[in-house]
Amino acid sequence: MSEKQVFTVVEGGSVTTPRGFTAGGLHCGLKKTERNDLAAILCEVPAIAAAVYTTNVFQAAPLKVTRESLANGTLQAVIVNSGNANACTGEQGEADAYEMRAAAARGLGVNELDVAVASTGVIGELLKMDRVRSGIAGLPEKLDGGAAGAEEFCQAILTTDLVKKECCVTVKVGEAEVTIAGAAKGSGMIHPNMATMLGFMTTDAVIDGEDLLSLLRTATNTTFNMITVDGDTSTNDMLVTMASGLAGNEKLTRLHADWDAFAAAFTHVCKSLAMAIARDGEGATKLIEVQIDGAVHDEAAAAIAKTVVGSSLVKSAIFGADANWGRIIAAVGRAGVPVSPERVDISLGGIEVLRQSRPVAFDEEQALHYLQKSDTVRITVALADGEGKATAWGCDLTYDYVRINAAYRT
Amino acid sequence: MSEKQVFTVVEGGSVTTPRGFTAGGLHCGLKKTERNDLAAILCEVPAIAAAVYTTNVFQAAPLKVTRESLANGTLQAVIVNSGNANACTGEQGEADAYEMRAAAARGLGVNELDVAVASTGVIGELLKMDRVRSGIAGLPEKLDGGAAGAEEFCQAILTTDLVKKECCVTVKVGEAEVTIAGAAKGSGMIHPNMATMLGFMTTDAVIDGEDLLSLLRTATNTTFNMITVDGDTSTNDMLVTMASGLAGNEKLTRLHADWDAFAAAFTHVCKSLAMAIARDGEGATKLIEVQIDGAVHDEAAAAIAKTVVGSSLVKSAIFGADANWGRIIAAVGRAGVPVSPERVDISLGGIEVLRQSRPVAFDEEQALHYLQKSDTVRITVALADGEGKATAWGCDLTYDYVRINAAYRT
Repeated sequence: MSEKQVFTVVEGGSVTTPRGFTAGGLHCGLKKTERNDLAAILCEVPAIAAAVYTTNVFQAAPLKVTRESLANGTLQAVIVNSGNANACTGEQGEADAYEMRAAAARGLGVNELDVAVASTGVIGELLKMDRVRSGIAGLPEKLDGGAAGAEEFCQAILTTDLVKKECCVTVKVGEAEVTIAGAAKGSGMIHPNMATMLGFMTTDAVIDGEDLLSLLRTATNTTFNMITVDGDTSTNDMLVTMASGLAGNEKLTRLHADWDAFAAAFTHVCKSLAMAIARDGEGATKLIEVQIDGAVHDEAAAAIAKTVVGSSLVKSAIFGADANWGRIIAAVGRAGVPVSPERVDISLGGIEVLRQSRPVAFDEEQALHYLQKSDTVRITVALADGEGKATAWGCDLTYDYVRINAAYRT
Repeated sequence: MSEKQVFTVVEGGSVTTPRGFTAGGLHCGLKKTERNDLAAILCEVPAIAAAVYTTNVFQAAPLKVTRESLANGTLQAVIVNSGNANACTGEQGEADAYEMRAAAARGLGVNELDVAVASTGVIGELLKMDRVRSGIAGLPEKLDGGAAGAEEFCQAILTTDLVKKECCVTVKVGEAEVTIAGAAKGSGMIHPNMATMLGFMTTDAVIDGEDLLSLLRTATNTTFNMITVDGDTSTNDMLVTMASGLAGNEKLTRLHADWDAFAAAFTHVCKSLAMAIARDGEGATKLIEVQIDGAVHDEAAAAIAKTVVGSSLVKSAIFGADANWGRIIAAVGRAGVPVSPERVDISLGGIEVLRQSRPVAFDEEQALHYLQKSDTVRITVALADGEGKATAWGCDLTYDYVRINAAYRT
């Protein structure tokens, strides 16, 4: 089943495209520049909701508050700030996250236990709550259900990101047309594991809550969990999804005839956002896509794909347009999973460079041209150990990554 | 027992200082510049020997040949080239490694099965064997037992290294004075696991072979296996040690009264070389030492120490002299081992920045001065989970790392 058969990408669509959602953002003063740093998504009804979180031992205060809100399986709003992660901020940080939730609930006229809180930015500094308070007071009038609201929202969640990340698709469920959309941020400290950087998905589907959570986890595993920028897993990773149920479809469960189509559409949004995060990795000039086939199983393929795409040496070579397959095979060999060392094929953008673990005499000029001219560099590794396959995404390692991260706090 | 009590560092000592060893090197044409690229160490008698190797699935041809030579537990010579790793070179590569061994054995007048072969450099290219052959023919006359031979040897094993790495100590075993020395190379693709980059150790101790191997493994675990430059594990890592037995000591076994002193001296040489490799990491301006105390056990402490010292974000922050402890705690939290998140203390060079997981108001000017002026940046993390401790070493991530690795092959 090809993806194109079951859903349609909505150009320009965003988190406000599914029925029932408004969004908006503003600058309240947490970022030093005049860019937006506070935002919300509001659903006109309590939405069936699900979330996945970082696996980092140190979890920021907003994650605790959001988990508590999600205990009842519904959300009606998300309040999010950038410029400050509210992580490692102790009891005061927790109190601040609770206050953000209460203020947002009051301002937006929703139940406090239906509000999720998310933060991203510097770790270990207390939020300037006076600015947050006055920002939240001004937010309700900023919300709208069109492209402008989504744009302000997307801008507000960015930190070192250069571009906003959003995606929207529609899919048929019975006779109803269901819309699924998402927005995300993330550029550094990107090595999600069972979670992601901040991601927000909306849909108007009528859907079972447990099946939505199960789908969210499955989709995350092959999308957000398959990207890496720098191998560092954030304390604030969170992906929240809300389903307004306003599409009027027959309720989706995993037994519904159109579940697979919905799942494919949902996964497409996740994948699109995940790839956008990898492409916008700090300092990146290229997206790197690593595809592994023939591993002993999918988990082994995933481990190899992530090891290759996360290798500093592979990343530097791609930045330098160097077809250095020796670094690729060295990364394959240290992934910690079984590989038959004599039966490995490697291609770069379709140019075969290694066959059965032996160098192939390839056209260096052609390879150089491919690596220099391509926005997306595709590395394909074929093993001969089984049926396992996986794809991972990352970006090149550049001078700008070092520049950005040598002076982030200052 | 302090290290100073049991052994003495020999300033200027190297692999030829222990009795019985000569060494030398020359330029045979594998490197593009006129630097040495072929070298040997020769022992005047067959030496009790041991080695550890890379855990990478893809192992270079010389490792196979060296394993075969070491099957009898003795070595009399090591032949090593730089400029070409002889890895992923198939049957021809294996034949070349065997030919290197045979030619060295002939030229040096020793048994072929007492010769180890080591290579380092670019992966996937065949050795220019005409140059290797004529180089090996010229090597015997270059060998000498003084500082000059050791110097030529050390120069010949370097690739992107900026400085040679060597260390020599003496220790009393009964009434005899035993000398232990080592030389190593390594600057990139450094994330050893059960092995190291190329390292060569010599000693004149009379020692049991199995106990020597056991000591080598133990010492490697807390030294070479605790350094990382870029998280990439080489296909060629190898650490070889040879004991000439010419010190005339009563035979060392683990039951000998002076075993602990010998082990401490031996471990000191390993640690000194390992730290020198980390300090000379590609593009590095600083050595980073991460010390973990209070983990649930030593293995957990080691995992945390290596995660922190390997974090691209921590490494970039140190380069930028940014006391960004948020990145340190984020790395601690993703190491994959249990940590009580509310009870973490962190210091940078003795400046406390986090106490019981809460930010401490520290003097930013003092921290900046420490980070800017120190050759070695010490990060101390105290957990409250047990008695586990470990120390790991790495280096900062700089523009030069990217520059070096964006154009290594070309």
